[in-house]
Formats: sequence, C-alpha cells, structure tokens
Amino acid sequence: VNVEILAVGTELLLGQIVNTNAAELASRLADHGLTHRYQGVVGDNPERMSLAIRQAIERSDALIITGGIGPTLDDVTREVVAEVAGVPLEFDAAYADAMRVRWEALGREFPASNLRQAYRPRGATAITNPKGTAPGFRIEVDGCWVIALPGVPQEMLPMVDDDVLPFLVQRSGLDRGVVRSRILRSWGLSEAAVGERLDDLFTTSENPTIAFLASAGVIKVRLTARSSSIPEADALIAPVEAEVRRRLGDHIFGVDDDTIERIIHRMLVERGWTIGTAESATGGLIASRLTSVPGASAVFRGAIVAYASDLKSSLLGVDEQVIAEHGTVSEETALAMARSACRALDVQVAVAVTGSAGPDPLEVEVGTMCVAVVTPSVERARTFRMPGDRERVRTYTGTAALQQVRLAVAAS
Amino acid sequence: VNVEILAVGTELLLGQIVNTNAAELASRLADHGLTHRYQGVVGDNPERMSLAIRQAIERSDALIITGGIGPTLDDVTREVVAEVAGVPLEFDAAYADAMRVRWEALGREFPASNLRQAYRPRGATAITNPKGTAPGFRIEVDGCWVIALPGVPQEMLPMVDDDVLPFLVQRSGLDRGVVRSRILRSWGLSEAAVGERLDDLFTTSENPTIAFLASAGVIKVRLTARSSSIPEADALIAPVEAEVRRRLGDHIFGVDDDTIERIIHRMLVERGWTIGTAESATGGLIASRLTSVPGASAVFRGAIVAYASDLKSSLLGVDEQVIAEHGTVSEETALAMARSACRALDVQVAVAVTGSAGPDPLEVEVGTMCVAVVTPSVERARTFRMPGDRERVRTYTGTAALQQVRLAVAAS
Repeated sequence: VNVEILAVGTELLLGQIVNTNAAELASRLADHGLTHRYQGVVGDNPERMSLAIRQAIERSDALIITGGIGPTLDDVTREVVAEVAGVPLEFDAAYADAMRVRWEALGREFPASNLRQAYRPRGATAITNPKGTAPGFRIEVDGCWVIALPGVPQEMLPMVDDDVLPFLVQRSGLDRGVVRSRILRSWGLSEAAVGERLDDLFTTSENPTIAFLASAGVIKVRLTARSSSIPEADALIAPVEAEVRRRLGDHIFGVDDDTIERIIHRMLVERGWTIGTAESATGGLIASRLTSVPGASAVFRGAIVAYASDLKSSLLGVDEQVIAEHGTVSEETALAMARSACRALDVQVAVAVTGSAGPDPLEVEVGTMCVAVVTPSVERARTFRMPGDRERVRTYTGTAALQQVRLAVAAS
Repeated sequence: VNVEILAVGTELLLGQIVNTNAAELASRLADHGLTHRYQGVVGDNPERMSLAIRQAIERSDALIITGGIGPTLDDVTREVVAEVAGVPLEFDAAYADAMRVRWEALGREFPASNLRQAYRPRGATAITNPKGTAPGFRIEVDGCWVIALPGVPQEMLPMVDDDVLPFLVQRSGLDRGVVRSRILRSWGLSEAAVGERLDDLFTTSENPTIAFLASAGVIKVRLTARSSSIPEADALIAPVEAEVRRRLGDHIFGVDDDTIERIIHRMLVERGWTIGTAESATGGLIASRLTSVPGASAVFRGAIVAYASDLKSSLLGVDEQVIAEHGTVSEETALAMARSACRALDVQVAVAVTGSAGPDPLEVEVGTMCVAVVTPSVERARTFRMPGDRERVRTYTGTAALQQVRLAVAAS
C-alpha cells in the first residue's frame, strides 16, 4: 500500500507553522513498513484541494489528509472530498447529539457552528477523535482510501495510532507480521565512524534492517525487524543488537527514548548519590539539563556558575594558585572546580566546565572546553575542541559533560 | 508570479527530518508579496521527481527545488531537470577549477566526486553558493522558472535572499514597489488579548497589513507595507506602529530580531551594571539564557542554583527565618534570594526564582513561580501561575523572569 500525505492549511503556505505532522506521520508509516512517496501542502482553497486530491487518488493507494475538518467556514475538507467522491454530505444525528451531550456535561453552551462537524460524505466511515470534537473519516474513491484527519497534532496522532495505522497495515496484508524497532543511542563517535564500524552489518542485515540518525552529537542506530510475532521479531533483533553493542562499546549510552539526563538520574538514584555542577562557559546549561528530569530534586542539589574569573576563587573556593599556574581553561582548574563544588554544594558527584565558547578567544582557542568529573572514587578530566558557533559549542559541551558524568559514575 | 516549492529527499519521506526549509521559504515568499499555493516532497527517485516537476511546471510560474544537488550518486536533481527541460548537462570547467583551488587553499585533497557539482543543464544560469560547494541554478522550462538549490538550510537560505528572491520579485513586477516589514515583539498578553486590543486596526489597516504570530509566550505583531520606495513604505508603517505601541504599552519589548536576552544585555551595558541569578525551580536556565549572548561576560558574572532547600541559606545566605515564616515558594523568599545574590556574586542586578515546576507539588500548587528582581534602586517581586507540564513551566518562567529584569532595570 502506497500512502500519500496532504496537509491542508493556508498557515503552512505562509510559513507561519512548520509541517511537523508530515514528519510524524512519515516516520510512523516507515515504522509500519508502509510505502510513502509523496507529500503535499495546499491552502484552504476548494479548487486547489480538489486538484491535489485527484492527483493523489490517481497515483496512490491511500491518501491521508490533515487539516480542514474544524468548525469554521474555511474548513472545507469534508465538502471537497464529497465532491471528488461524487457523493453528497450526510448529517450524522447520533454524533451531533453525542457532541451536544458532551459539551453540556462540561457546563458549556453548545456552539451551533460545531454541527458542521457532524457531516461526512455518504458512505464514509467515521474515525473517532478522543482528544477533540472533529471526527475524522475514511472513504474509498476510485480504489484509493481517502482518510481525513484534524490538523492539530495532539488530536491527529492518537487517531493515526488507534485507527489509521491498524487499518492500513491490515489492508496492505502487513498484519500477517509485526514490526519491532530498537534504537541504540551512542555518543562520542561521528556518524561516519559509527557507519564504518557497522558497514558490513548495514549492507548484509536484511531483517532487522539498520538505519542511522544523527542529532546534536548523538548518533542513533535503529534496528527494525519484521516477523510473525513479537517474540520472534525480538529474537531477530537480539543478536544484531549484541553485535552492535560489542562494536560500539560504551559509546552506547541508552536505548529507545532514553536521554542522558534520565540515565544519569537513574544511576545516581541507584547509588544514593547527589550531584551538583560548577560551570563557567556553559553558564548553567548543565544544571538546567539535569533539573529538566521530573523528580530531579532526589539527586540534584545545586550549582555554582562562576562566569567571572574572580568568582572561581571567591565564591567557589578554587585555589588561586591553581588558576595562576595552569590557566583558567585547563583540566587542573576544571578538576579544582569540581572538587570545590563537592564541598560547597555538599554532593558526592560534581561536574565542572571551564572553556571558551567564543566569539572572542579567552586565553585559549575558541571551542576549547575542559570538563572534569569527581565522584567518591574517581576523578577524571578531559579537554574537548568543539566546532561551530557559540550556541553549538555550548550545546555540544553540555552533552559531552553529561556523558563524562555517566562514564565516571559507571567507573566508580 | 505563482511560486511552488518541491523538497527532494528520502529522509523527509522517512520522517527522519522535518521540512523546515518549506516554512522558511514560504514565509520569505509571503514577506515579498509572492503567491505560493503548493508544496511537495518526493524522494531521491528520478521518475517520481520528474513527474512532480512536470506537474509544477504546468500550474506554476516558478518552482523552487531544495535538495538533490550534492556530490553523491543519489543526488539527481541536475539530471532530472535537464531531462524535463530536454537539454543535455554541460560541464562548467571554470567552476570546477575554482572549486579545486578553494579546496587546495584549505590544504585538503579535492574529492573527484565533487566534479558532479560542476554540471548543469545547458542554458541554465548558475546561482552562487557562498556557504558551500554545490552551486544552484535556474532555467526556464515551458514558461516556468525551475530553480534548484541545496537542501542544507545554512547554504540554501542565503542563496534565496541574495539571488532567488530579488530575481522572482523583479520577474513578477513587484520591484516597481518595495515591501517592508516591522515586527513588534510583546510579552505578558495572550494572543487573544493582543488581538482584541488591535482588532479594529487588523480589520481596517490594508497598508500596512497586520499579522500575529505566537511562540512560547511571545506574541509578535508584524506590520507589512508595500509602496514605491523604502522611505514611503516606512512612512506608512510609522503611524500604525505608534498606535500599536500606544495600545500594547510596555508589553512591547523589542523589534524585528531582538531577543529579551540581547535587550537586557544592551540595557546593562548602557548602565555599566552587572547581573547574576539565584535560581531554584529553573535550575540554571535563566543563567544559561543570559550567557547565550555573545560577549555575555561584559555584564553576566555568575549564578547560584540552590535547588536543595538547605542551600538557600547555607550557600546563598538567605535568612532561615524568612523561609520559615513565608515559605520556600514566596515573594519574600525570592526577594531575599535576589538580595543575597547581589552580595554573593557582587552584582548590581540580580534575579531570583523559587517555585514548583512539578510533577509533584511542593508546598504550593504546581506551576506557582515567584520571581524577584533587585537593582540599585528598585526591588520587585511577582507570582506567576504557569500552565502546562514541567518543561513548559520552566521555559515560560525563564522568559517571565527575563521580562521582569527588563521592566525593573527600565524603571531604575
């Protein structure tokens, strides 16, 4: 089954919003083994929508339309699909009543304009919208399934997961099997380096297939297996996952939706340790990331951002001699900052960063970043040279520092 | 001139990346008064690209293709456009030499695969790519201008600004006039509230037109005027801008690309003041945002993140009695934190935040955030109730705190 996506909305053509719906839908179609070759965008214009829908019907087996089924007069997807299908709109009185009851139960007056949403092309099947008032629908037109959904992602995506994907998978005969994905998250190797280490697996492994995705220094390796049952699919993934892990070693830090922040949180909770940061160039970024995890207060106690040089000694308590001897941006100063943070914040684990994020060089080249981590049994420091502009240097340094925390705690 | 956009790339069809190029291009087309009715996405497949390009040529006056002009074998935009135009590819020897010289000047070996990029359809005009190696090109096919650009946004957008937009504007006769835009950035009012205050202007003002854009608590009001010269267009905008400013008052904090971080930086530099933060629930986020500005060290000295309650007194030096009497999350504690930060960090201006970001309520309702700012002549505190999940509460609180800094410094 060839699935095409058409987004409807003038705000997309004005560049006021980004079409994230298409990417979310596309990645779900790929995960379910459904073929997807075209995406389109049109405005809320009946004539051009009609043209785009007819083209899609000609070349695809299914068309998912997002948007244009709300209550206002510029929502015309219902009308246009009915016209293309050559059928009239029909009023679903039972649905209208249910909608009215739902509104009145909330103590709100039912707006008459909502009644537009109780219409759908004759012969179309309604698709329940658990998160909103506009139901979707699907109707077969000239051998193509036309599926209309709301444009709001929070409403659209659950409808896709609960109804549209199972429907398309069944239609395409793919339900004779299951698809399972496993994502291994790595850090510290470039995409090219990960690719080289896994080159032969990439070429020879057909089930599971292997794909690489890079974002902000993290390279994800996705294994996707297809089989007749979940245990069988998982059994296909297991040996390939083991081989990938063997080749990438401790560069792999998590699976599926793991983030480095959550992994650190988990490791610290297990050990009953607390953490704090002493930051210069990253200006609180690492503390901010550690506290983004719900329940952060179980492990995170605080941070000292000593951006001005004099605060490194006066506030943080680093020995001025260390700085004078080794320089502000040095592994020795980073280590001294981490040790001082352990005392000042009363924590078992501290991470410290000192460096030059640019644009003007400090005493060292822009992008030079010294990271130190101290735990009850391990002390380690490392110097990174980060490419790119200030924002990129800061972001990558934040990630690098968190990875150093993971490695140091694991080694403790 | 009707402009259509076609993005080429299998990674878009797999949902691995979001098509932000389309939104960036669309918003530029709208700003320049160019009509834009269709967007499409196809994979790196010659047959389907050819079909999509032919359809676009039929219905549009210009087609911008992004992607598929890199050096690898799956980059086939050049070949497909040549085939659709019915012309052969021609080798641009001068361009190839220039490319080789550039690489060798960087001391790098010139990869032969890059020579693919020196080909373009016969009769096509090259479009210089100042940020990369792949030049773009444009060629007229059956009355439609087909314009091929790289898919990398950092390369594509400068080419659009420097070459494609001036070209399209001139072709469309829009250069007999100019388009000028002014964006007024507001904070502290909802989109609906901004809309209500400007409702009559929105309906009656035709030149400039008014548009609203909301993102993360900031509501942008965009005024776009069209006239025969820049001074005339600016003169049309001026009275409407003055009226919008009168109605929104000090909710307006900046224009065009201003960010609140840069505005605070500028205000502090003017006054010769330094700043620091004392943070609890935001965990260093505000310090991190203040240090995102290049040259931050001129005004930002440091931060103390006292996430664990005991650090508020032991590290920051807040009187334990204040906390015991008013509670950790209170305007009094926030004020005491800000005052302590002024002393501990040796700064003139300090901003402090204490609150509950959830998911578990502290002593107060989740989303309750107390923000205090201290300057040499002003002390102010305010309590916000932020909706949404932890991440949203933290982000909105960061913005609210920075806005309080702006207001307090302006009133000092």
